[in-house]
Amino acid sequence: MERIDMLKVASKSDPKKVAGAIANLLPENQTVQLQAIGAGAVNQAIKAIAISRGFVAPSGINLICIPAFSEVEINGKKRTAIKLIVKSR
Amino acid sequence: MERIDMLKVASKSDPKKVAGAIANLLPENQTVQLQAIGAGAVNQAIKAIAISRGFVAPSGINLICIPAFSEVEINGKKRTAIKLIVKSR
Repeated sequence: MERIDMLKVASKSDPKKVAGAIANLLPENQTVQLQAIGAGAVNQAIKAIAISRGFVAPSGINLICIPAFSEVEINGKKRTAIKLIVKSR
Repeated sequence: MERIDMLKVASKSDPKKVAGAIANLLPENQTVQLQAIGAGAVNQAIKAIAISRGFVAPSGINLICIPAFSEVEINGKKRTAIKLIVKSR
């Protein structure tokens, strides 16, 4: 499977599907990054991380997240995205 | 100073002020919990954690966060809050 560095989460993203993607990516990747722009997207991303914690916990994986700001350009305009770095510890 | 277990974050909370509160509470508390209800509040809480990482990083503290769901009762109605457990590691 190709290495995916970042999952873009939107306000209409299904948190359970994003959670499944995180759980699938983590065994092969040290970290999974989520990118969210706007409050609705950040909310879905945080829900997804909470759900994915339940998916991976039975395998002994404890997911944590590091929030950070990230400048992105969309249609020539600079916007501030929230980057959520998800790691197992 | 009295031990404060939880900071309630609202959509109108100033992320910088919440970040300052996190940075002040962490040296005496193992963890600081933020509670946010609704997308706007979750967004402000996540921004606050990102900002507070910058406040405590020069002291060698690396803040991480664990998102979880939490049932709360507001005016007799059950609502799902997001609980963000902030820890240093």
